Amino acid sequence: MRAGDDLPALITAAALELRDGDVLVIAQKVVSKAEGRVRALADVVPGPKAVALAGDFDKDPRLVQLVLDESAAVVRVGHGVLICETRHGFVCANAGVDLSNSGDEGVAVLLPLDPDASARRIRAALSAKAELTPDSGVNSDLVRVGVVISDSFGRPWRLGVTDVAIGAAGIEVLEDWRGRRDVHGRELRATEIAIADQLAAAADLVRAKDSGEPVVLVRGAERFVTSEDGPGAAALRRPRDLDLFR
Amino acid sequence: MRAGDDLPALITAAALELRDGDVLVIAQKVVSKAEGRVRALADVVPGPKAVALAGDFDKDPRLVQLVLDESAAVVRVGHGVLICETRHGFVCANAGVDLSNSGDEGVAVLLPLDPDASARRIRAALSAKAELTPDSGVNSDLVRVGVVISDSFGRPWRLGVTDVAIGAAGIEVLEDWRGRRDVHGRELRATEIAIADQLAAAADLVRAKDSGEPVVLVRGAERFVTSEDGPGAAALRRPRDLDLFR
Repeated sequence: MRAGDDLPALITAAALELRDGDVLVIAQKVVSKAEGRVRALADVVPGPKAVALAGDFDKDPRLVQLVLDESAAVVRVGHGVLICETRHGFVCANAGVDLSNSGDEGVAVLLPLDPDASARRIRAALSAKAELTPDSGVNSDLVRVGVVISDSFGRPWRLGVTDVAIGAAGIEVLEDWRGRRDVHGRELRATEIAIADQLAAAADLVRAKDSGEPVVLVRGAERFVTSEDGPGAAALRRPRDLDLFR
Repeated sequence: MRAGDDLPALITAAALELRDGDVLVIAQKVVSKAEGRVRALADVVPGPKAVALAGDFDKDPRLVQLVLDESAAVVRVGHGVLICETRHGFVCANAGVDLSNSGDEGVAVLLPLDPDASARRIRAALSAKAELTPDSGVNSDLVRVGVVISDSFGRPWRLGVTDVAIGAAGIEVLEDWRGRRDVHGRELRATEIAIADQLAAAADLVRAKDSGEPVVLVRGAERFVTSEDGPGAAALRRPRDLDLFR
């Protein structure tokens, strides 16, 4: 994947025949690369803050500078990572800046500038292509697909990363159960369910990190696919004033 | 589900014909109920700390007392919840104590005392029953099933709950990629993947909170099913000294 590559065309060419209600979970890294969101470390001049932090961490100061550039705030520092709030408002290690799977030594991949906009663009392109598939066997008017852009985030309190949604289009990202009742008629505790994050996690189970498989088709989740693009993964960001850990 | 009910027998009776490599994701609530981990609020006498906290929160002081009883530490207080570290070492809202889906008004459900032991017991019983199924079409020696006990936890920084594993048996709960390389030969950033949590999240997508469907069969995840019971969901607890948010 290189800057300018047509990701939806590549997905379609990978012999996916999209059906109404399909969800495509796409790894952030290929979206970022197609959008040119990569930086060669050789082109980065670290400032004094990056140099100081890099010394504490035994990291490349140029990489730390990229992390700071991507961050609206540094939430915590320790254990070899900077936990940052990205400019989009996601909280994750190193503001999502990563050297692995970049395809080139010394090249860092950054998160897309607006992952929900990326998801909307991909969704529109895939929907258009789905309509052109002559043997899809569906009424082209009915082809609604959902798109989730996923990345692997760590969590406080629990070991291991899980995949979450950083971008989404055509997905009910949060299922709202507020005021609804359980099977016994009692009001539910779990008021909102992070559907888009669970779709990302489910998709991650079917690929290996070294497999070079950036797209997973999820079938059977049509009840979460919407006609409209919807609010995207931005709706999953917990506002600061509702957050006990910032 | 009532105390003493035979959960594995009920699962088997629900017409599941288990195959080698199947994973069963079981909602914590039915496990707790079968184990008698319920408390009638009428039987709880709140202490002064519970009364004070309940006043701040507009909650039932008896419910707060149950939460405190289940907690090794209170991590944060605010927004109508106590974020607690349970006696098992999980960090979650209200120490997992919940009034919804309990089946009885005024009855709270607590987390199992040892959810990994619960998972091991269920696994053993299901494996034995699978061997007795005459038409299963598999060599009984090969029937290995995995068991995950799931609960819905909130997260810092992100809205919505996702299902996570609080108990597990026969599952590679953490997939270890440390030292392994990406498709380009570069060392990976995502070093450990929380497989059991992702299985719980995937399972939650196929049921609704009001459906009374406590068990989900996950097929196709056999690469994560192990012959041994393994370390269980205890392996997902981040040690305090590796945690930046406690």
